[in-house]
Amino acid sequence: MRLAELSERSGVPTPTIKYYLRERLLPPGRRITATQSEYGEDHLRRLRLVRALIQVGRVPVTTAREVLAAIEDDSLDHHHRLGAAVRALPCGPEPDETDPATAAARNTADELLELLGWRSGLATSPAFGMLVTAITALDRLGYACDTAHLLPYARQAEQLAVADLDVLEEFATREEQVEAAVALTVLYEPVLLSLRRLAESEESNKRFGSGS
Amino acid sequence: MRLAELSERSGVPTPTIKYYLRERLLPPGRRITATQSEYGEDHLRRLRLVRALIQVGRVPVTTAREVLAAIEDDSLDHHHRLGAAVRALPCGPEPDETDPATAAARNTADELLELLGWRSGLATSPAFGMLVTAITALDRLGYACDTAHLLPYARQAEQLAVADLDVLEEFATREEQVEAAVALTVLYEPVLLSLRRLAESEESNKRFGSGS
Repeated sequence: MRLAELSERSGVPTPTIKYYLRERLLPPGRRITATQSEYGEDHLRRLRLVRALIQVGRVPVTTAREVLAAIEDDSLDHHHRLGAAVRALPCGPEPDETDPATAAARNTADELLELLGWRSGLATSPAFGMLVTAITALDRLGYACDTAHLLPYARQAEQLAVADLDVLEEFATREEQVEAAVALTVLYEPVLLSLRRLAESEESNKRFGSGS
Repeated sequence: MRLAELSERSGVPTPTIKYYLRERLLPPGRRITATQSEYGEDHLRRLRLVRALIQVGRVPVTTAREVLAAIEDDSLDHHHRLGAAVRALPCGPEPDETDPATAAARNTADELLELLGWRSGLATSPAFGMLVTAITALDRLGYACDTAHLLPYARQAEQLAVADLDVLEEFATREEQVEAAVALTVLYEPVLLSLRRLAESEESNKRFGSGS
């Protein structure tokens, strides 16, 4: 297909596609004339992944390039390819290691993973840093956030992850699964947070509403 | 207590407390000399709520003032006071009503609430708008997001809400519960999202890891 069709089918404007080509986030098309190139289905798939990373995941271009290199690395298994893509997603502020509360929060998070029986390798992931930062913030505001408080949330997360991976496995190819892992991790976050707020309102009405 | 002690016990710097006093987010203390005032435990509690709204919830000052007015409104029951505080929290971009995909997403979200048996009144809440925006984004990127996909997440959200309200009821007074509803809604969001990413990695390793 030509650039115009690639743009139409992907929903990405042509100037953006040209930018991705210049930044080598997208391999060049097959040149057919001095000014025109031909693109294939693999370009369309790659374009969707690049868009998922950059537009949905808000990943910087240099990070996106690293992710693309990782998922093309044949020495990695599918789990590590998925992980490389999802780990690249922004995770908010990193833990402040100069704050003594951070060390305590890290202990709590370590203890939680051990209680859950999750692999210790997770402690190096950016999401673990995000958890430590969040526990530190709760602690600093005087809200108890020990493993007893965290465990019900972690058990919910385990069930969410099963649902997430089930959705992922609906995609036929492993390349589509990597793309979907990035897009769905990011896009289901507001779904989850909004449903939680709606469910809280529903539960609050049951417990405290004057109409009930 | 004096301003310095209020600052120390709340962890809020004195210039910030003075700013909250000027903005009438905090009622004035009891004047004891021309330059000094005395503050009570109610100031400390109110200060924690203001900080939860502004620093944690990133709520603008004018919105915070409206929330404080709502939670002091004696005509509201406890459910509506909690709701007024949580509804003030930012919910991301509102649905784009000029986009035809928004109408379809709104239908899906309505259908979901009906399936769940949640009250129809929820459709006016900002969290509902957040859900509609998220479904529209999934749809625009070509990811199926019908009630069958959303239902497992909504069921998880129901269980999360029970855990959230249990934590809330650990607080003795209703004023503390309102403060905690704001702070914990916001502060547990990164806890939940980071645990989901960690659990996804754990689940992906089980399904696709070469070591398993």
